[in-house]
Amino acid sequence: GPVAAVLRELRCICLHTTQRVPPKMISNLQVFVPGPQCSIVEVIASMKNGEEVCLDPEAPFLKKVIQKILDGGNEN
Amino acid sequence: GPVAAVLRELRCICLHTTQRVPPKMISNLQVFVPGPQCSIVEVIASMKNGEEVCLDPEAPFLKKVIQKILDGGNEN
Repeated sequence: GPVAAVLRELRCICLHTTQRVPPKMISNLQVFVPGPQCSIVEVIASMKNGEEVCLDPEAPFLKKVIQKILDGGNEN
Repeated sequence: GPVAAVLRELRCICLHTTQRVPPKMISNLQVFVPGPQCSIVEVIASMKNGEEVCLDPEAPFLKKVIQKILDGGNEN
């Protein structure tokens, strides 16, 4: 969401990461590449209930859910 | 980036999509799932020069670049 995007331009924003979230509850995913302000990849899921959740970039779950979304498999 | 995230809560934001951007120039990627306000998947790349570019969700390029970022292959 917007908050994560702005904050992440200043510093890393994920204190801890979650392995999974319910895919149907995801509203958008943001993948931040490492940069001067934060040296690690960070993935933030904005959930339909407004929550922002940090996901583990290396979780197999994440690659599957992105695949599914890109293939248009996540219709509401 | 923040602008795309806020706008996308109102409507679709991609008028046209690009097949490729230089991977090293990507600062973050946002993947928006279809929802009440926009019925298609939209992928916005925020570039290091501040530009926001709409990418084709089904472009093979996109899956490869996301894979590379998540595997930590995109160090600066």
